[in-house]
Amino acid sequence: GTDTPDAMHNEQHDLDLYFLGPKSEQRQFLVEVLQLVLNDHVFWRRNYYPKDPPSIPYSKVHGEQARHFREEFYTELFRLISELKLDVPIFSPRYAAHMISEMNLPSLVSYFAALLYNPNNVSSEASPVTIRYELQVGQQFAALFGFDTDRSFGHLTSGGTVANYESLWYTMAGRTLPVSIAMAGGQGAEARSADGLWALMNVPLAEVEERLAVFLAPDPEARFEALRPVMQSHLGLVGFARRVEAHFGAEWVPPAVVAPRTAHYSWARALPLLGLGKGAVRTVAVDADLRAKPDDFERVLRACQAERRPVWQTVSIVGTTEFGTIDPVHALADVRDRLAAEGLYTPIHVDAAYGGYFATMYREGEGAWDPSGEPMDAAPSGEPTDAPPGGETEAAFRALSRVDSVTVDPHKAGYTPYGAGSIVIKHGFLKDLVAETAPYCLDRHDTTEAESPRPQLGKFILEGSKPGAAAASVWFAHRLIPLNLDGYGRQLATLCRLTRDVHARVSERGKAADVQADSRPLSSPRIVSLYRPQLNLLCLLAVPPGAPVDARPSDASPRKWKLSDVNALNEALAARFGVREVMSIQSYDYLVSRTTVAVDMPAIAECEELRHVERDEAAVTVLRLVFMNRWFEGLNEHGQSYRENFLDVLGAEAARLWAEQPD
Amino acid sequence: GTDTPDAMHNEQHDLDLYFLGPKSEQRQFLVEVLQLVLNDHVFWRRNYYPKDPPSIPYSKVHGEQARHFREEFYTELFRLISELKLDVPIFSPRYAAHMISEMNLPSLVSYFAALLYNPNNVSSEASPVTIRYELQVGQQFAALFGFDTDRSFGHLTSGGTVANYESLWYTMAGRTLPVSIAMAGGQGAEARSADGLWALMNVPLAEVEERLAVFLAPDPEARFEALRPVMQSHLGLVGFARRVEAHFGAEWVPPAVVAPRTAHYSWARALPLLGLGKGAVRTVAVDADLRAKPDDFERVLRACQAERRPVWQTVSIVGTTEFGTIDPVHALADVRDRLAAEGLYTPIHVDAAYGGYFATMYREGEGAWDPSGEPMDAAPSGEPTDAPPGGETEAAFRALSRVDSVTVDPHKAGYTPYGAGSIVIKHGFLKDLVAETAPYCLDRHDTTEAESPRPQLGKFILEGSKPGAAAASVWFAHRLIPLNLDGYGRQLATLCRLTRDVHARVSERGKAADVQADSRPLSSPRIVSLYRPQLNLLCLLAVPPGAPVDARPSDASPRKWKLSDVNALNEALAARFGVREVMSIQSYDYLVSRTTVAVDMPAIAECEELRHVERDEAAVTVLRLVFMNRWFEGLNEHGQSYRENFLDVLGAEAARLWAEQPD
Repeated sequence: GTDTPDAMHNEQHDLDLYFLGPKSEQRQFLVEVLQLVLNDHVFWRRNYYPKDPPSIPYSKVHGEQARHFREEFYTELFRLISELKLDVPIFSPRYAAHMISEMNLPSLVSYFAALLYNPNNVSSEASPVTIRYELQVGQQFAALFGFDTDRSFGHLTSGGTVANYESLWYTMAGRTLPVSIAMAGGQGAEARSADGLWALMNVPLAEVEERLAVFLAPDPEARFEALRPVMQSHLGLVGFARRVEAHFGAEWVPPAVVAPRTAHYSWARALPLLGLGKGAVRTVAVDADLRAKPDDFERVLRACQAERRPVWQTVSIVGTTEFGTIDPVHALADVRDRLAAEGLYTPIHVDAAYGGYFATMYREGEGAWDPSGEPMDAAPSGEPTDAPPGGETEAAFRALSRVDSVTVDPHKAGYTPYGAGSIVIKHGFLKDLVAETAPYCLDRHDTTEAESPRPQLGKFILEGSKPGAAAASVWFAHRLIPLNLDGYGRQLATLCRLTRDVHARVSERGKAADVQADSRPLSSPRIVSLYRPQLNLLCLLAVPPGAPVDARPSDASPRKWKLSDVNALNEALAARFGVREVMSIQSYDYLVSRTTVAVDMPAIAECEELRHVERDEAAVTVLRLVFMNRWFEGLNEHGQSYRENFLDVLGAEAARLWAEQPD
Repeated sequence: GTDTPDAMHNEQHDLDLYFLGPKSEQRQFLVEVLQLVLNDHVFWRRNYYPKDPPSIPYSKVHGEQARHFREEFYTELFRLISELKLDVPIFSPRYAAHMISEMNLPSLVSYFAALLYNPNNVSSEASPVTIRYELQVGQQFAALFGFDTDRSFGHLTSGGTVANYESLWYTMAGRTLPVSIAMAGGQGAEARSADGLWALMNVPLAEVEERLAVFLAPDPEARFEALRPVMQSHLGLVGFARRVEAHFGAEWVPPAVVAPRTAHYSWARALPLLGLGKGAVRTVAVDADLRAKPDDFERVLRACQAERRPVWQTVSIVGTTEFGTIDPVHALADVRDRLAAEGLYTPIHVDAAYGGYFATMYREGEGAWDPSGEPMDAAPSGEPTDAPPGGETEAAFRALSRVDSVTVDPHKAGYTPYGAGSIVIKHGFLKDLVAETAPYCLDRHDTTEAESPRPQLGKFILEGSKPGAAAASVWFAHRLIPLNLDGYGRQLATLCRLTRDVHARVSERGKAADVQADSRPLSSPRIVSLYRPQLNLLCLLAVPPGAPVDARPSDASPRKWKLSDVNALNEALAARFGVREVMSIQSYDYLVSRTTVAVDMPAIAECEELRHVERDEAAVTVLRLVFMNRWFEGLNEHGQSYRENFLDVLGAEAARLWAEQPD
């Protein structure tokens, strides 16, 4: 059953009050609340066996020894909290570097509250309270993405990278099962050929669950014992390949993993970790908007089909780490379905570590949940709000219900403390496979349902211990900030609009420069926004004046720039606006991050401003901006918005650094 | 270089003041310190661009909207902090269930301090301060275990399970490298036979580093590019096996992992995860004290040698999860060395997730470090203290310098918040292999040295994001509680002594019951301690009266009990003293955990009290006690120690439950 939160009704509010704020505006509230939480815990302890005498004698707490203790503690503490002051000012509207901003107050306060109790969320014995929160969060995400909450399974991880590993671990356990069932004498036992093997390696996961049920039915325990020795988890990849070849009399073609070029580096790590090797990846090309191309996905799948190479899993990205771009999940799912009808099946895992929370933009307010994933009104009734992105982006989010698993990180767009990632899998039975527990053999008290008397997690997941405080933090944030347009949805839609505005302003400034250049040659670099932002990330590139030489004959410099010149300029800008060794954070006026983009990526290859730049390097360095703080639109001390001020400063610094470049 | 902490000089103190305490005895101090930390952060924010106006208007912070916000927040918060009160009273001396107790104050306060800043410890760009703490902690552990801090690599993980995965991931990358070098035309290229393959798969890790250096020397970048396509990380396990077979003209025998029977379940998960399969494990038998048997280790290695089966890694346990027992690392290392001389090499990974901190018992005080691992005086000069365990246990700890990697969890015996595990690898170059970066190609600014200008972690580890707060927490705890007999060592030695005392008291009470039984038949169960505790864990078993029938002819019951009777009694006791659904934690008088031990384990097979019990079940349920709280020796309201009171209550409850058992 779903435990949908009785979401608070915030129709009247924005989320301003839910943050401590750049100037600690909510200081009084936070101090007051933390004091309450601390005292509540402290006196809870005192109420357990109140007649038990103190274990630390009064004389010690207040004596000479305590004086020494305090002296040492404070000496060291002052050093610690002084050093921490050199950390990055992520709370400020002047920070737009990484996928991080200040935590929201609910998540911070609840993390602290649960930290005092320090539960370990692996079983109800070690965390009777917070393990239920975690399982509820799993169901909330399942509902958000349109999965059936009764059949799916979701839980928290230390981060999205571990969640991504888990997706492949779960999937592989399921994909090989029909072959194991056949080798154990069950359905498919008669199929001893390359064709038979191909068919068994392409059984959809939903059907795998049925096959397992049919196989186990006569005698679950005995049947599972018969299955175990021919499971890949027992044989290992090499042993399984050999066993399959002997059984089917056909070559074992090592399966592939399909992923777009924009996939996070955790995928390059997942393949070696799981023994598949980096060579197992088949890469899907992306378009100029940095989204996986469905026709190239089809090409890749057909190539696998031609080689009789099964596809363990296809990875699709919703909110790429570098660009915040969104694959067209709907179109990829169409391709998947079409190929499945032709005999090649692949589950789709969506890596929405960053983008997952943006699905709340498409959920109607007032706590409503729509597990069907059908379109609904984007704007909440009554209140005016920023419209979430439409078109392909919206279609991609609405298609999440068609995929098989999703990674989403609360510690990114959920504004909760590190480390809180999560995964939801549609085919919950896969968790029993990795636990090597037949679903029908399960102790009925030993399940992952939040309502079960003794929920368990440890046996179904990769991690062996996990902070219950992270679960409390995410759960409590969702209580106060609903996963729809009343809560996260509004905040994130605002950030998307803000980012589109920045993109538009960069273009406007560029056009103004062009107009000016018609009369007088430009002497300073132009700032270019590399692609249309889909969420709240964009990439800026400083292009030296006169770069498109033939396009702008009036430019002062007839010189044809090389990419290394462009890169030197942008590296200098990245260093100027990046984290560096400082004596005080006052040294940072604005903070952005940098990334590199290969020259053959369409966003670069088709970039008008770089058309005439000689490609003497393989990648372009660009500035990467992530707008997590909506006060970037607010006004600074001079009454100018941070946005306009930043663009002024950026332009001026680009000009200065360009002038300083060696010729 | 090592950054050894200038450890505080606590010779005069025990650690009483370093905990909040069962009755919140240190309440005043904690409240005062947390308030300081919070205000320090709050005003830090206000000092960043002080002239920037507030982003949240005063009218909002103090207006009508704020009233709504507060109402909602407090309503939900009261629910949360009320539910948390049903968490387990781990802070109490009445809790002896799991490897958890209250956190020490340094770790709690520093976790909170860093939580406010919320850094992400993957690179210095996201955590300029706390990433250095993490790398320093890695060096501290390296020094504690006697590794060369300049050549080793240590870092924190979310827990010991991930650390264990990493150990195997690092090791496998190194073990296959000589074969890859040979296939790439380097050293060993001429050896194309089964013998040649065997020799290459048994190159010690220290020598692998040299071979890599020699191979890369002529042209590091080009050579590494030649190597990459024949590395297992690129080919995958199946592709690598096929390539090796084609190259050497010999069968690829899938390597094994050797582990004792007492290994944590994370190992059973690691093998399928990494594609090796559970079938790859070779199990070493344990003795009656639940320690791996060196002669059986030798038998296992010789069996692998006979099959020409390489051994990826041998796992040895220092502080088993179920029993707290310590493998004789010294004797296992002797066997390893002997076999290595005969051509079978295996690195040893010590899973000291629990036991690692107990190594501090063997480190002299006053902040001294002895990386040589040579014996030294166990007792600190001057102060009387509890002696740490000697004999085999001490020898095992002193032999840690001979192993290749160690897992240790600060969130266990380090008394820090979840999740903080860690791993230290002696052969630090393995981190470059998993990052697929040739050591000589590394950007010199891009290293894992704490002193480097821009330390990096993300590319060398499994996790992609990690809370800097956990690093601050462990680092600060080590600042105030040194990793030697002045700090952790004393606390842990005290707990070991306390546990031996409990074991002795159980035996004394058993003997007293025996004496009584000579005159009058016993009617209530005897409590038996299953094995001699090596650290601070022990297992108790309630044996029904008259169980050893022939040994005690005068007993009332001539009945020969079955193991199922014994188990029913101990299950009932485990339920009585276990976490259950309660309305208030007042329902718990004492808390212990349970575990099961297979009947063929020597501790059970050779158990005198079970000798005549009919073995109708495969495992025995026992009570498992972990003593993390030294106030268990203190006095309760009646002036009786918790220890004696617990044994009284346990005996009485065993008698009551036995009387209630159906006949």
